[in-house]
Formats: sequence, C-alpha cells, structure tokens
Amino acid sequence: MEIIKGGVTAAKGFQAAAAAAGIKYEGRTDMAMIYSEKPCKTAGTFTTNVVKAAPVKWDRMQIESGVKAQAVIINSGIANACTGPEGDRVCQETAQKAGEVLGIEKEGVLIGSTGVIGMQIPMEKLKAGIQKLSEDLGEDAAHGTQAAKAIMTTDTLEKEAAACIEIGGKKVTIGGMAKGSGMIHPNMCTMLAFVTTDAAISRKALRKALQADVQDTYNMISVDGDTSTNDTLLLLANGMAENEKIRYGTPEYEKFLEALHYVNETLAKKMAGDGEGATALFEAKIVGAGSKEQAKTLAKSIVCSNLTKAAVAGHDANWGRILCAMGYSGAGFDPEKVDLYLESQAGKLQLVQNGSALDYSEEKATEILSQPEVTAIADIKEGTEQAAAWGCDLTHGYIDINADYRS
Amino acid sequence: MEIIKGGVTAAKGFQAAAAAAGIKYEGRTDMAMIYSEKPCKTAGTFTTNVVKAAPVKWDRMQIESGVKAQAVIINSGIANACTGPEGDRVCQETAQKAGEVLGIEKEGVLIGSTGVIGMQIPMEKLKAGIQKLSEDLGEDAAHGTQAAKAIMTTDTLEKEAAACIEIGGKKVTIGGMAKGSGMIHPNMCTMLAFVTTDAAISRKALRKALQADVQDTYNMISVDGDTSTNDTLLLLANGMAENEKIRYGTPEYEKFLEALHYVNETLAKKMAGDGEGATALFEAKIVGAGSKEQAKTLAKSIVCSNLTKAAVAGHDANWGRILCAMGYSGAGFDPEKVDLYLESQAGKLQLVQNGSALDYSEEKATEILSQPEVTAIADIKEGTEQAAAWGCDLTHGYIDINADYRS
Repeated sequence: MEIIKGGVTAAKGFQAAAAAAGIKYEGRTDMAMIYSEKPCKTAGTFTTNVVKAAPVKWDRMQIESGVKAQAVIINSGIANACTGPEGDRVCQETAQKAGEVLGIEKEGVLIGSTGVIGMQIPMEKLKAGIQKLSEDLGEDAAHGTQAAKAIMTTDTLEKEAAACIEIGGKKVTIGGMAKGSGMIHPNMCTMLAFVTTDAAISRKALRKALQADVQDTYNMISVDGDTSTNDTLLLLANGMAENEKIRYGTPEYEKFLEALHYVNETLAKKMAGDGEGATALFEAKIVGAGSKEQAKTLAKSIVCSNLTKAAVAGHDANWGRILCAMGYSGAGFDPEKVDLYLESQAGKLQLVQNGSALDYSEEKATEILSQPEVTAIADIKEGTEQAAAWGCDLTHGYIDINADYRS
Repeated sequence: MEIIKGGVTAAKGFQAAAAAAGIKYEGRTDMAMIYSEKPCKTAGTFTTNVVKAAPVKWDRMQIESGVKAQAVIINSGIANACTGPEGDRVCQETAQKAGEVLGIEKEGVLIGSTGVIGMQIPMEKLKAGIQKLSEDLGEDAAHGTQAAKAIMTTDTLEKEAAACIEIGGKKVTIGGMAKGSGMIHPNMCTMLAFVTTDAAISRKALRKALQADVQDTYNMISVDGDTSTNDTLLLLANGMAENEKIRYGTPEYEKFLEALHYVNETLAKKMAGDGEGATALFEAKIVGAGSKEQAKTLAKSIVCSNLTKAAVAGHDANWGRILCAMGYSGAGFDPEKVDLYLESQAGKLQLVQNGSALDYSEEKATEILSQPEVTAIADIKEGTEQAAAWGCDLTHGYIDINADYRS
C-alpha cells in the first residue's frame, strides 16, 4: 500500500466541486458535489440514532434497493433533521434537480447534510447551489480539497486521505473526505465521510469491507459522546481501475481492506483531533487484553470521559481518572494488575504499576501531555489482544462553540 | 410528612463533628464524624465501578456482615482509591482509632473518602483528626451543617435535607447530608451521602427502602457522566424514636419511604444543581411514556448530553440536541410524536409539536433558560408513565476546575 495525497478525486473518474449557496453560512462555501463518470456500486453505514435526518433515510432507501449511485450532494449549516415531511421533500427535490443537471437518474443521487437540527433548508438556494456545483466539477486534487472545505461546520481543517494498491498489475486508488467536530460519537458509522475508489469489486466485498472497518475506525472515536442524527459514511466504487474484480475473502480483498482501513482510520483520527475546541488528539490504547471487545470497550470509555479529557486539556497527569473510566466502562478487568503509560513525541513514561502510582516525574508527564498528539496506554495483562480509541481534550473552546451554536 | 430544617443530626441520638486535619486542603475543615448514641441498623449502596476505593470495600464488608454501625468517619481531599494494600490498611487503622476514642467495636465504624484518586492518606494526620472529631461532637443543627461543609470538595454549598413523619403517635425523623460536584454519574448509588433516622425499623424494610429509592433519586442525576470509584450512600437507623417497629410492605413503611424519598431526592437535586461549574439545575422530564424504564432512560440521556448542557449554559433553546439525545439513548420512541416544552419560574413554552418546530419566541425561550432551575419536558404520547432526571449546565467553570484539579 502506498499513501498518497488527495481525497475524493484521487480515484480515477471521480470529480468534485464546491459552491457558496448561502444556505446558512455567509462568505464561505457550504455545498459540495461528488460525481463519478460511471455509476458506482455503493455501501453505506448510518447513524443508529432513533431520530434520523431526512438525508439518512433517503440514502438508506437507495442503498438498500441496490441502486448504482453516481453523485453525492452535501450541504453544511442545516442538518435537515427533525424537519418532518418537508425535510423528506427537500431530499426528493435535491435528487431530482441533481439528476436533471447531471443527466442521471435521481435514485443515483445520494445526499448528506450537517448543521443545526430542526431548521428547514431553503430549497431555492439549494437548487441554485446544485446548478453551480454541476458547472464547476473538476477531477484534480484542488477540487477535492474545495469539497472537503465546503462540508465543514465547526471543523478548523479539511480532512482528506488517500492510498493506492496494486491488484493484478492495475493501480487501484481509494480516497476520502470527512467532517466532524461536534456531536461526534459515531455508532455504526460517523458524522459525514465520503470515500471513493476506482476498484472493480463485488458488491458483497464492498459492503463487507465497509462494515468490518467501521468498527475499528469511526466507531472508535468520540468528541463529546453525542451520537448525531446525521451520521453518514458512503463508499462508492466505479470500477474504472479495470482490475480483475475483487471478491470477498481473497488476498486481493485483504489488500483492498488494508488501504480502506488506512483512509478510514486517518479520516477518523483527523475528526477526533479536530473536535470542537480541541487542542490535542487523545489516543487510548489497551494492550494485554483477553479479547478485542474488552479492549475496545475500555479504550472508548477513556476517550469519552469528560474528566480525563479536561485533565488532558490541563496537561495534568491525573491518571486516576483514566483508571476510573476503565472501571465504569462495563468491561471487566483486575485494577490491581494495570500498568499505565503516557506517550507522545516528547517520550514515554510509566505512571502506574499493578494499579498503584509509581514515583514518576510530574514535570515529564506534563511535557508529554503538552504535545498535539497524546497516547495513554493501559496494559491489563490478561492476554494478547489490543485496541485503540481516539478522542480529544475538553477545553473552553468547546463551551464557547456550543453554548451559543445557533447564532 | 413535614419538611424540616437540619441534616444528619436532625434525628434523635445522632451527633456530628467537623475538623481541619490538613489531609490535603489547608485552611478549611476536611474531616467529619457522625456518631449515634445507640448502634444502628445499616443499609448502604456503593459504586458499580470495577475500580472500588478502599473505604467502599470496607463499608460493603461490614454492611454485608450485618454489623450494627455506630459511627461514620469521612475525609475529603483524598479518595483512597487505587492505593493498593496500603489503602486497605488506612481503613483498618481508621476504624481502629475511631473505635478506641469512641469506645465502640471497630466493625461498627464506617468510612467515606472523596478527592484525588491514587494518593495515599497521611495516617498520622487522619488519626489526629479522629481524636479532634470525637472531642467536638454535638447534636445540634450547627454541628450537622459543619459536618456537611467538611465533606465538600469542589462543591460550592453544603447539602442537607430532613423530614419527619408520625408512626403510631411517635415522631420519626430522617435527615441527611451529601457532597457531589464532579465525577458524578451514580450507578446504584451516589458520590457520598449519609442519611440518619431514629426510626425503629426492621433491617429488611430499611434495606428495601434504600434500594428502591436510590433508583429514582441518586441514580437519576449526572454531572459529567463519570461514575466515581467512591460512590457511597449510607442509611443508619438507631430506633431512638421508640415507634412500633416499621415492617416491609405496611402502610407505615410507605410513610417512611415517602420521607426518605424526600430527603434523598432533595440531596440528589442539590448535587446536580451544584455540579462543577454549574449555573443551573437542569431537569429533564419524560411524560406519556409506555413504561417507567423507557421514561428514565430517555430523561437520563438528556441530562447527560454535553451538547444539551452547553446549550443550557448559553441559554440557547437548541431543542434539536434534546431530541438527538433521546434518539441515541437506547430507548425506542416515535420522534414524530414528540411534543417538547421548556419550563422554569419564568413560564412554560412549547417548542416542538409532533417532532417539528413550532413558531415559538426565541426571546421567551432564552428568558426561561436563564433561570437557576430549568426543566425540559418531552411528551412521547405512548402511555401514562413518567420520570425525571437531574443534571446541570456545562460551563467554562467545569473546564477551569477540571483542567488542573490536582494542583
């Protein structure tokens, strides 16, 4: 696998565009389009929230019917959630309009929305935006990046990742973009992420790959414990790499999965590290676990703990909060066997041995915690399984952003 | 039932004291003692966290053995959690010392600790504190309040409540004190709460009453989603009211339960409203539920949502976050049937009907949200059950307190 620059336009035959439609934000782009020259096999995962946004319902319906998608329309600013029948009509008309301007079936148009819940999207602005997007499509990296910027809400940076592999002498590329930042606690999928590939791949392999990988990537991040109404992850494959078709369970499938995992994990970590108000990406690693599930439950509990996150914000090695968060996770373990370490580019330091404090240097611990990427490692000495979860610190910035988000 | 002033010394035969032992804090009291003239039947509930503090293990052992307790020793500042065998020795020596100075068996001494996890308690200071406490015991309300102040950590106010009932012509009193503030997300019990009564009551009735009431009071509050290692709720009954013994399932039991519920709910709400950095008590009420369990799950999810809590801090009627939090709670309901209201002393306002926004006044909503006690009410129109949960807003104060708690 080779890691490359780029995003949703990295794979062959994919184009993107961004537009300023003035849906809610002024003075910035707020709509994006992804377009594939050829229809794509499509896999998707969506929020498990009982309250589902209209575009989530639309996409699920299309993907479950097995439609080949050829375009994705995304808007930021308004989530189109809790919008009743009018919200559903907005999706219908979005797909209709995009189908017209692109000359494709409306069922081949998927939709993503993110922003305030409960507001209606102004349809005329959205339609004008779709028209503009269709006129500005381009397949270069800059167009991909513009799209990645347009879907941001409180994100501070666009999020892209891409990789390529070789399948039977043919170069196969996977690239994606995502937005995160707040209401991030994905369950079965994530806020908004769009991954494209030119791989020729069976529908079964595509869907299996996505379902499997989501569990170890997007579902292992949390910014604030709030699972959104709009979480959407779409994976589109247009087959234009002309490789021999990848089938589930083959060595080629494993190769594809590796590259997909890289793209997904990179986007997920970028979301965690750019959480609302965050100053650090906070990783929790559980090693020596008896099972993968146990390791995941413990790791996720640590990155979800408000107290632990506030301690990271203060560069305070308050390790008791980490053990406490492991303790209420629901997973069993022996607290008196736990070794705990902090690690970052400033070094690695053991704080706890067999559940009790070592005489470590607080100064060194603070230095480690002052880096932009910080890892807490807990060895629970039960077996050989491990897992990681990603979150961020909890800062004044989070309060600033969310105490008055709508105005 | 009559609501009265007072706390742990309200019931007959109970004395309390506070002392400044200098265990971690300087210039304030940090130890408290509760003493009963007669041995007490005792019920307790404790944290479900896998990581249990040494005093939790000590108290559980004594209570499960059916011992009659006569004293409780509490310290604030250091939690005596994750302290290994040395932590257990501290409990042994605490009970030993208190037993000596009070002239009682050490098994009759219960212990509560709260504060930093992982630090060892300086035993000599603790012993000197116990000596002082035993010399300063008093049965008036002022002594009860001093004890309630001494157990505070980041609490801004002491928390007391008391009520009395009449059982067969005898006055029976129940009073209690609690501390909360951070790492508050009780599961089967709460941070530290101590309730005393002079009721003559069977052990079974006492334990049943506590177990039942905890579910609707302490277990329905959350400050930050972090379930502590030290959660302890103790209920001591010394029988000195000389009423005919209260037995489980009788009308007298129901009367006792009503007064106990008042004391527990009042202490729980005081903890929620005085959460770290809080400026408001935030109540979530679910009405029209199909089952009590469903109502409780939905209500608790709302008060645990960081985004909802931040919106309350900003007096922003961002109701979509409330619906979103209900949606990911794990309880089923039909989002398109939900009516949502905000209520406080400034009035009541409907924001949502059948899942969609009404054209309500944002100004009025902000006025309602600017009060010190705010309630969100969701009618899910499935049945007649209801439940309430209590939390607080999420503010800059929480970050200030927790980004650098230990120093």
